[in-house]
Amino acid sequence: MAKNNITKQADNFPQWYQDVIREAELADNSEVRGCGIVRPYGLKIWELIKAELNRRLEDDGVENVYFPIFVPLENLMAEKDHVKGFAPELAIVTHGGGEELVNKLAVRPTSEAAMYKTYARWIQSYKDLPLRLNQWANVVRWEKRPRAFLRWSEFLWQEGHTVFVSEDEARLEVDKILNIYSDIYKFMALPAFIGRKSESEKFAGAVMTKTTEIMVKDGKAVQGATSHYLGTNFAKVFDVKFLGADGKFHLGHQNSWGLSWRSVGALIMGHGDDNGLRLPPNVAPVQVVIIPIYKNDESKEAVMLYCENIKNDLAKSYRVKTDEREDLSPGFKFNYWEVRGVPLRLEIGLKEVESKSVSVFRRDKETKELINLSELKTSLENLMLDIHNNLYQQAKDFADSHIYRIESLDEIDGRLGWFEASWSEDPESEKMLKEKYSMVSRVLVPENENKAPKNKKCFITGKQAKHDWYFAKSY
Amino acid sequence: MAKNNITKQADNFPQWYQDVIREAELADNSEVRGCGIVRPYGLKIWELIKAELNRRLEDDGVENVYFPIFVPLENLMAEKDHVKGFAPELAIVTHGGGEELVNKLAVRPTSEAAMYKTYARWIQSYKDLPLRLNQWANVVRWEKRPRAFLRWSEFLWQEGHTVFVSEDEARLEVDKILNIYSDIYKFMALPAFIGRKSESEKFAGAVMTKTTEIMVKDGKAVQGATSHYLGTNFAKVFDVKFLGADGKFHLGHQNSWGLSWRSVGALIMGHGDDNGLRLPPNVAPVQVVIIPIYKNDESKEAVMLYCENIKNDLAKSYRVKTDEREDLSPGFKFNYWEVRGVPLRLEIGLKEVESKSVSVFRRDKETKELINLSELKTSLENLMLDIHNNLYQQAKDFADSHIYRIESLDEIDGRLGWFEASWSEDPESEKMLKEKYSMVSRVLVPENENKAPKNKKCFITGKQAKHDWYFAKSY
Repeated sequence: MAKNNITKQADNFPQWYQDVIREAELADNSEVRGCGIVRPYGLKIWELIKAELNRRLEDDGVENVYFPIFVPLENLMAEKDHVKGFAPELAIVTHGGGEELVNKLAVRPTSEAAMYKTYARWIQSYKDLPLRLNQWANVVRWEKRPRAFLRWSEFLWQEGHTVFVSEDEARLEVDKILNIYSDIYKFMALPAFIGRKSESEKFAGAVMTKTTEIMVKDGKAVQGATSHYLGTNFAKVFDVKFLGADGKFHLGHQNSWGLSWRSVGALIMGHGDDNGLRLPPNVAPVQVVIIPIYKNDESKEAVMLYCENIKNDLAKSYRVKTDEREDLSPGFKFNYWEVRGVPLRLEIGLKEVESKSVSVFRRDKETKELINLSELKTSLENLMLDIHNNLYQQAKDFADSHIYRIESLDEIDGRLGWFEASWSEDPESEKMLKEKYSMVSRVLVPENENKAPKNKKCFITGKQAKHDWYFAKSY
Repeated sequence: MAKNNITKQADNFPQWYQDVIREAELADNSEVRGCGIVRPYGLKIWELIKAELNRRLEDDGVENVYFPIFVPLENLMAEKDHVKGFAPELAIVTHGGGEELVNKLAVRPTSEAAMYKTYARWIQSYKDLPLRLNQWANVVRWEKRPRAFLRWSEFLWQEGHTVFVSEDEARLEVDKILNIYSDIYKFMALPAFIGRKSESEKFAGAVMTKTTEIMVKDGKAVQGATSHYLGTNFAKVFDVKFLGADGKFHLGHQNSWGLSWRSVGALIMGHGDDNGLRLPPNVAPVQVVIIPIYKNDESKEAVMLYCENIKNDLAKSYRVKTDEREDLSPGFKFNYWEVRGVPLRLEIGLKEVESKSVSVFRRDKETKELINLSELKTSLENLMLDIHNNLYQQAKDFADSHIYRIESLDEIDGRLGWFEASWSEDPESEKMLKEKYSMVSRVLVPENENKAPKNKKCFITGKQAKHDWYFAKSY
């Protein structure tokens, strides 16, 4: 245990994660098993991610909609793969308004089955397409082994649901959205591995799933967001058809895609260190914290005035906060904001006031420098950019240096990281891998999809390999 | 039925309301009885209201939080008035993850019972107070007679939950929030009657409720938002106590307050006319719509180029859209956007191109004028302001001229509007009024709270009257 009540990453990474969430006041346990409370500091991170993604989606012509939280069970049962995937995780409402319901309702685990009957009503002709709607909502998937942000029974997310005239158009959008998701992770200074999921790992009911996978600092994977081509699987079931330009009826080609507050979990695990969170400026609720340091009333007055002027000046460009708490020492405050990952800390005492300067501490490198007041604004601009780039580069270097090429199962060992292997894509082999090694395929990246596997033989079955895939344990 | 498939307000106001919602594509019925779908045009209005309210609350120091959608039933049962108020409206989850739950869960109808046990854990000392948190969330209250936006079984809202050291501080916040709500309605160009609710009409579990009441265009009332002083009622039950500066433990004084997408319903009913919606610019998803008018390919090119330049110029300041649909006549488009209440329509044909001008139609007054291109930006600024002010003034004039002073029950007749009467505040008399006249007290405004009633005798009971109250039918 360090000064900050946080377990060291190397000692127990999952415990470190829980400790950081508690100490940085990101989230808390609730009265309901499996569900969490997201506290203001944690929720603000999600709101910043959400605002950026919403802007990107709106710019791309997607419109927001809101469908009910309840889904008639019979709708959920209609698509056979979908129900198989979600039935074990449902929360069921059996009573409403004091009466037992004739038709039981599920709390939505995702909204394909909630939306597409209505889509069928809205869509008449090819002129109504593409239909591209998105919903910011809570969903419930009952979790036996909950983990904060990554695996709570209730979570907040966005789910896009789109309909196209042709398969080509739909598949193009799958990639377009995947690239937006990848950009959102870049916004969080996290490099994402994007590409296709295996047949066993794809979304229940989809023809194909593409994913955004993040390597976190214990070498495991976090699925950051997914983009699915649903084909006409749901269109058949819910009768989503349109009158084409050819005067005939056709089934719509559908996609769905989602990013949730798991992204906050990936962010914590992707950047944090033994001292707590490290936040890239884009998603830091507080980008600059000012700590006044004084010994007596006289120095206090001068210091506080100096701090206030700087704060007012910086507040035009940054989310800035002065920690004015009287009964806490500067040392306590340094630690308090370090745990919370604030990118820049300004330490201001009489020395700084008298020399017209500011001591600037950057959280990512834990270095401090004295900056002239006249150069503060330019320096901060550069520092913010440099912190973002440094965090990104560190995460990228870590990921790049923790992917190990293997040719056979024997080579899977305790190394932190992912394994790259040539694989037959045989579902049975993946099942075995999951059971014996707690590991599945994470993603087939485009570079590997577009070339022959390095080894002709599958590393598990010895049969013909199809591509080089990444395999990893995951959260 | 008019050209636009909308029933006239005078013929059947509730039907007019439903027609506008359908024709303007604000909302739709869902697969789940009592729950609605909010379509993009309707949701955008809510998002604009939400953004403004969120900004106001953040400026006031309130922080956002997220608690689970489920509440253990036993928590809900803990406060006796609260459970009496909400038990009949609960949706109950009995099964989760394939198993019957030992402890049944309610879907939150409001979150007092979901939050305050946790508040008790977070609050130790007076230094932790005030605690001022807000949550943007969906809640469920089973409705037997649903009505779009105003009374759906599920609705979106914000709920603020705050804790103070003293009753005085708490009561001050009740009024501060009430004023923010009143400002939000002003933002929507709607005057609100703010003040106290009667004992029977207050929130279940509150000591006192203050309300924001809107008079809509058939003279009924819509409760626009409420702000409650909970006293220590919940603090006692959930053990929300703090160590005071005096070294002793005290119960926290609590408030809760909420504004929901009922506000969209009030907006529709408060401003709409026989041609559909009329939206004030602040909450109009499209503030300016441009309709290009041309007869042949040659004029089309010139008109479209002219439109594009104007659009690009205006897009810096407004939410602007050009209706470029090829297969629809200008007349159809005029009607289409009138129904949707777009404040300003720019009609642009060859005449306008050649005279370097724009025909500008304002929805609120249904008047049109030709404006020189060089003056367009200034004119639009003034017009937007004028539309807002005109809508506000119309709503205010309507409200002021539809409040009738009565001295006895006999005077209650079919007049559109509210009745003002001197009242004893006797709960039994209010019950009778509700049963026989479908009417209850709406609000005691501060002007009437701070003076003696005009009549010493209660208009119902003949007993001693306490104040002059407003009474009305409501949605």
